[in-house]
Amino acid sequence: MQETKNVSDNDDRPAGPPSGEAEGGLQARKLLSEDQERDVREVRSNRFETRRVTVPALEEILFEPVPVLDHGFVRVVDYMGDDAAITQAARVSYGRGTKKLREDAGLIRYLLRHRHSTPFEMCEIKFHVKLPIFVARQWIRHRTANVNEYSARYSVLDREFYIPAPEHLAAQSASNRQGRGAVLQGDEAGEVLELLKRGAARAYGDYEHMLNQDEAGNPLDPERQGLARELARISLPINVYTQWYWKVDLHNLMKFLSLRADPHAQYEIRAYADVMIAMLKRWVPTTYQAFQDYVAGATSLSAPALAVVKRLLAGEAVEQAESGLSQREWRELMEQLGRA
Amino acid sequence: MQETKNVSDNDDRPAGPPSGEAEGGLQARKLLSEDQERDVREVRSNRFETRRVTVPALEEILFEPVPVLDHGFVRVVDYMGDDAAITQAARVSYGRGTKKLREDAGLIRYLLRHRHSTPFEMCEIKFHVKLPIFVARQWIRHRTANVNEYSARYSVLDREFYIPAPEHLAAQSASNRQGRGAVLQGDEAGEVLELLKRGAARAYGDYEHMLNQDEAGNPLDPERQGLARELARISLPINVYTQWYWKVDLHNLMKFLSLRADPHAQYEIRAYADVMIAMLKRWVPTTYQAFQDYVAGATSLSAPALAVVKRLLAGEAVEQAESGLSQREWRELMEQLGRA
Amino acid sequence: MQETKNVSDNDDRPAGPPSGEAEGGLQARKLLSEDQERDVREVRSNRFETRRVTVPALEEILFEPVPVLDHGFVRVVDYMGDDAAITQAARVSYGRGTKKLREDAGLIRYLLRHRHSTPFEMCEIKFHVKLPIFVARQWIRHRTANVNEYSARYSVLDREFYIPAPEHLAAQSASNRQGRGAVLQGDEAGEVLELLKRGAARAYGDYEHMLNQDEAGNPLDPERQGLARELARISLPINVYTQWYWKVDLHNLMKFLSLRADPHAQYEIRAYADVMIAMLKRWVPTTYQAFQDYVAGATSLSAPALAVVKRLLAGEAVEQAESGLSQREWRELMEQLGRA
Amino acid sequence: MQETKNVSDNDDRPAGPPSGEAEGGLQARKLLSEDQERDVREVRSNRFETRRVTVPALEEILFEPVPVLDHGFVRVVDYMGDDAAITQAARVSYGRGTKKLREDAGLIRYLLRHRHSTPFEMCEIKFHVKLPIFVARQWIRHRTANVNEYSARYSVLDREFYIPAPEHLAAQSASNRQGRGAVLQGDEAGEVLELLKRGAARAYGDYEHMLNQDEAGNPLDPERQGLARELARISLPINVYTQWYWKVDLHNLMKFLSLRADPHAQYEIRAYADVMIAMLKRWVPTTYQAFQDYVAGATSLSAPALAVVKRLLAGEAVEQAESGLSQREWRELMEQLGRA
Repeated sequence: MQETKNVSDNDDRPAGPPSGEAEGGLQARKLLSEDQERDVREVRSNRFETRRVTVPALEEILFEPVPVLDHGFVRVVDYMGDDAAITQAARVSYGRGTKKLREDAGLIRYLLRHRHSTPFEMCEIKFHVKLPIFVARQWIRHRTANVNEYSARYSVLDREFYIPAPEHLAAQSASNRQGRGAVLQGDEAGEVLELLKRGAARAYGDYEHMLNQDEAGNPLDPERQGLARELARISLPINVYTQWYWKVDLHNLMKFLSLRADPHAQYEIRAYADVMIAMLKRWVPTTYQAFQDYVAGATSLSAPALAVVKRLLAGEAVEQAESGLSQREWRELMEQLGRA
Repeated sequence: MQETKNVSDNDDRPAGPPSGEAEGGLQARKLLSEDQERDVREVRSNRFETRRVTVPALEEILFEPVPVLDHGFVRVVDYMGDDAAITQAARVSYGRGTKKLREDAGLIRYLLRHRHSTPFEMCEIKFHVKLPIFVARQWIRHRTANVNEYSARYSVLDREFYIPAPEHLAAQSASNRQGRGAVLQGDEAGEVLELLKRGAARAYGDYEHMLNQDEAGNPLDPERQGLARELARISLPINVYTQWYWKVDLHNLMKFLSLRADPHAQYEIRAYADVMIAMLKRWVPTTYQAFQDYVAGATSLSAPALAVVKRLLAGEAVEQAESGLSQREWRELMEQLGRA
Repeated sequence: MQETKNVSDNDDRPAGPPSGEAEGGLQARKLLSEDQERDVREVRSNRFETRRVTVPALEEILFEPVPVLDHGFVRVVDYMGDDAAITQAARVSYGRGTKKLREDAGLIRYLLRHRHSTPFEMCEIKFHVKLPIFVARQWIRHRTANVNEYSARYSVLDREFYIPAPEHLAAQSASNRQGRGAVLQGDEAGEVLELLKRGAARAYGDYEHMLNQDEAGNPLDPERQGLARELARISLPINVYTQWYWKVDLHNLMKFLSLRADPHAQYEIRAYADVMIAMLKRWVPTTYQAFQDYVAGATSLSAPALAVVKRLLAGEAVEQAESGLSQREWRELMEQLGRA
Repeated sequence: MQETKNVSDNDDRPAGPPSGEAEGGLQARKLLSEDQERDVREVRSNRFETRRVTVPALEEILFEPVPVLDHGFVRVVDYMGDDAAITQAARVSYGRGTKKLREDAGLIRYLLRHRHSTPFEMCEIKFHVKLPIFVARQWIRHRTANVNEYSARYSVLDREFYIPAPEHLAAQSASNRQGRGAVLQGDEAGEVLELLKRGAARAYGDYEHMLNQDEAGNPLDPERQGLARELARISLPINVYTQWYWKVDLHNLMKFLSLRADPHAQYEIRAYADVMIAMLKRWVPTTYQAFQDYVAGATSLSAPALAVVKRLLAGEAVEQAESGLSQREWRELMEQLGRA
C-alpha cells in the first residue's frame, strides 16, 4: 500500500520516503480479509469523469486502509471540496474563486485565526474506521458528525480485540488522575498482557457458545436455539473492535483533531487522530498549515497570565505568590513559555 | 410554476439529453452578470478524473443556476455520494455494496420507511442559492446544515428585490391565520404592486445615498464620508435578495423539503423546495421515489383517527360527535381520506 | 415491567399522594449506597422559593431514583417549564399565556399534530441515569442532548453488571435479523445465565487485579504498580453499568421516546423509555396525551398505502398483487389496520 | 451604554436589594404596553415552592425587561441550574456536590481552562428578546440554541424601528472592510437620520395600507380585501423590531457571548451581549469570573507568535521580517502584548 505508508511514515519522520509495495501488501493482509481486499482493489481501480474539484494527493490513498493500533484502520472513502472551496464559499463566488493562490492562502489563514468557522464547514470528508469500542465511546461524543456503525444486533462481531503493545502498558499516573505514568515492567507487564488476552479469548468463546454458532455461521449444537445476537454480545469486553462510517465537515474535523491529538487525550484515540492529521495534510494542505499554526500549535493565555507575560517582557521579576495565578496555573504558564 | 420548467421538464425524461447550450445560455443571461456567466461556463467546462462515485445526471446540471422567483436561483455546486452510498454505509461495506440494484432499492425503501436516518446522512450536497431575505429567514431555521452567507457588512448588496407576480398577490386567508386567500383583483392588486416597487426603488436610492457610493463603487459626493455598510443596509426591505452557500446531508435535506414543499409553507419558499426536489430526483432517483411514497405523499393517522378508519373499514357509520376527534381533526381526516 | 410499577401506578392517580417514605426508602436501599441515599434525602428535603413555574407532580419524585433493569435507575434532577410554557413560547407572550386551559390544550395538540417543534424545545429536563454500556451506546446516538458521563479514566467502576431476567433471555428471531424470538428454555437458559454471571465476575476480578486495588481503593500488592485505570477497564464487558447526567429539551425527548419505546427497539433500552414516559406524564400531562395520540399511537400511511385504504373504504376488494405494495408492505399495512 | 446601567449597577452590589418598583416601573413604561406591563407584574408576583436549586440574584430580575438599543430588551424568563450544578454534573453526583465552595470554584476554573465543555451544558437559560431583524439574522447563526420567533405571517408587526443614536452613526472604516470608522458629523449625520426615520415611517405606512388595516385591526377601506400578512411584511426594512424566546445552555451561551461581545462584532449585537454578560454574572458568578479570565479576557498565541514571545523573554531583539509572522500578524501580536 504505497500511498498510505507514506502517511504513517510522514508522521514519524517528517521528510521520510514512501514505503515499498511489499510492506504495504503485508499490512493490508493483516487488516482485511481476501474478500475485503478484493472489494477495495475494485473500487480503487475506478476512474470516473467529474466536473467537481478533485484532490489528486487524496485520491491517491482513497479507499486504502491505513493501520492504527493492532487491528484497526482509517480509510477515506469520499470527500467534498479542497482548499479553494473554502475561499470560494467565503466569497460566495460563482466560479472557482481567484486564481491567486497566495491570496487564497492568506484568506484561509485569516479565517482560521479569527474563528470564522462557516467557510470551513463547506468541505466534507467521509471515513471508514475500525476501532475498539472504548475508543468509539470517546469518539462519538463529537456530535456534529454523521455516523453509521456496524450493528451487533444484526451481525456477528469479528474475533478481534485491542491488546496494547508492551510500550503502551502504563501504570496509573500519580500526578494526573486521568492519565498514565511509567510503563509497566517485568512480571507485572507480562501478567497484565496475559490477563487481557485470556479474557478476550474466553469472552469470544462464550459469545460463540451462546450464539450457538461458529465463525462460518453454522450451528454448533442442533439441539440449542442460540441466544439472540443483541444479547450474546453483552458479554464482550469494550476492547472488541467495531467499525463505522464517520462523515464530518472540515471545521468540526479540526475541532475533533485538536482535542483528540492533544496529549491529554488517551493514547489509543490519539493514534487515530495522528493518522487523520496526515490525511488532512493531503486533502487541504493550506488549511493543514494554518491548523498547525493557529490551533494545534497555538496556546491560550488567560487574562491574568497575559498580565504576567507583559510584566516579564517589561523586565520585571514576577513571583507566583503575587502573580494572580494559582500554583497550578503558574506551573502551566511556565511550561507554555518553556521556562519550566 | 413557470420558472422551474426547464428542470422539471428534464425530470420527466430520465435518459434525456442535456439542456441545450442555447437554452442554458438564455437562462444564464437573465440571471447572471457577464462575469458571473463566464465563471460558471469555466467551471462547467472542467473534466477531472476521480475514484469517487459520480452521478452523471447531476453532473449535467452542475454549477448551472436554475431560476426561482423573479431574481433568485438555486444551483448545485458540489455533491458527495449517490443511492449506492446509502446502502454501502448501511452495510458498513468495504467496496461498492452489492451489484444487485433491486436489493439496494429494497433496502433504501426499508430504511426510509422505518426511520433509519443515519445511512441517508452519508450523502451530502452543496447549493448556491439566491433568495429574498424573508425566505432566508425561514430557511435558516433548519439548523442541521452549513451556511455561508454573502456579507452586507463587507460588500454592497445588488439592486434586486422580490416583487410577486400578479397571480401570487393574495389576500389574507379568512380561515387560516397563517395563509393566503383569493388573488387580489383590479385596482387593489395594481396599487400593491406599485407600492412594493416604489418602496424598493426608494429604499435602494436611500441606501446608495447613505453609502455615498454608486453601483460602480465611486463616491457620489467627495465632501461626504459615507455611512458604514453595516448601517446603511438597515433601511433595505426584507424582499431584497441575498445569497448563500448551503450544504446539507440527504436526511436533513429531505426533512427540509418535506416541511418546505408542504402546502402550509409560504409560496415563496415552496418555489425553492420544488426546484430542489427536481434536483433530488437527478441525484438519488431511488431515494427520491421512496421520499415521494413514504414522506412527501405519506399521511399520518393519529391513534383516534386510526380507530375511526378501522370502524369505517368494518362498515360502521361513524359520526364526528362520537369519533373522539375534534371538529377540526375530523375535517382533516376526511380530507386525508378524500371524503371531504 | 415490575420494576417501574411504583411510578406507573402513581401515574394513574393524577392527584394522588406522594409515594410513602417507607416505599421510597425501600427502593432507595436496593439501588443506592448509604452515602448516596443520604445525599438524595438531603436534596429532597430542600424547599426553596421561586418565581419560576413549578410542576408539583414532578417535584414529588424529584431526585428519587426509579429502578430499571437489575441495577439501573432513572431520576429527574432538574426541569424547566411546563405545559403552559409551550403555549407561552408559541405566543411569544409577556406573561403566563392565557388562563383558558382548554385553549392551551387545543394549541398544544395543534402544534404537535402539525410538527411545529420549536415551542416544545422551550421545556428542558435533566436526568441522572444508571445504565449498562451497551444501552448507553444506543442512547448516545441521540445527538441533540447534553451528556456528562462518569469517567472510567478518572474513577473505578462499580461491580455491577446487567444479567437479563430469565423471561428476557430470548433466542435469535428467525424472521427479524435484528430481533428476539422465543424465550430460551431449560438447560440452554440456565447455561447462558451461568456464562454471563461467570464472565462478569471473572472480568471484574481481572479488573481489580490489573488495577492492583480493592474496592476500597487499597493496593492489593505493594510490589506492583497497578495498570492505569483507562487501560484496566478495557477488559470489562459491555453489560457493566455506567452512569450519566442527560439533559434534553421536550421536543427531542419525545423523539427519543418515540424511537426507543418502539417495539423495534431492544428491550433493555425500552425499559428506560417506558419509565421516562411515565415521568413525561407527570411533567407535561397535556403534551403527554398529545404525544400518545399523535406520535406514539399514530401510524403513517405511505402514498400507495393511502390509495389502498381509500379503495377499501370505497368498498373495493383489493389484492396485494395489484395494490402497488410489496408483500412486506402489504403485511405491514394489514397489521396497521388490524386485519392481519 | 446608558440603557444597561440599571443591571450593571445591580451587578456591583451582589447582595443588594431588588431594583425599586418605581425604577422598574419607569423602565417598563418605556418598553412595554400597559397590558404587557401588567402581565410582567403578575408573573413577577408569583412565589412557588420548589426542590430545585434557585439563584436569588437572578430571581430578583426574573421576567423584568432590561432595555437595549432604542426599543429592544432582554429579559430572563426561566433558568435551570447554578454554579454548583456544573460540578455536580462533572462528578455525576447523587446530591448537591461537595459543600466546599473553594473546591467547586477550583473545579469550575479547571474545567473551563481545559475545554471540558459538557458540565457547562448542564445549565440552561431562557430569554425573551426584542431586537431588530438585522441583529436577529446575526444571532440566529448560533445554531445550538432553541428559538421561537414572533410570526409576521400570523400577526401584525409593531411600528418600531431601530434608529441609531447619533454617536453610533459611523462612517465606513477605511482600514477594516467589515467595520466602522469615525462618527458622522454635521449635515451628513442629520441627513442620514432623517432618511432612516422617513424610510421607516413610509414603509410602515405602506404596510398598513397593503394590509388594509389600522393598528387596532380595523379595516381601513371596506372595499379592499387587504394583502396577506405574509406578503405585506416583505416591504418592511430590516431595522424593524421582531422578538423571540431564545433558550441555550451555559456552554453555548458563553460561546455566543465571546463572539458577540467581541470588538469585531457589530455594535448593535454587542449591546445585547453586554447586557447578557451582566445577567451571566448574576446567574453563575464563579463561572462568570472564569469566563472573564479564560475566555473573554484570554488571548491566543499562534505557534510562530509563541516562538517570538519566547525569544523576547530570552532578551532577544526580534524584527517582524525574520519573525515568521506576516506584517498583519506581527501587528496583532504587538497589540496583544501591549507594545503597539
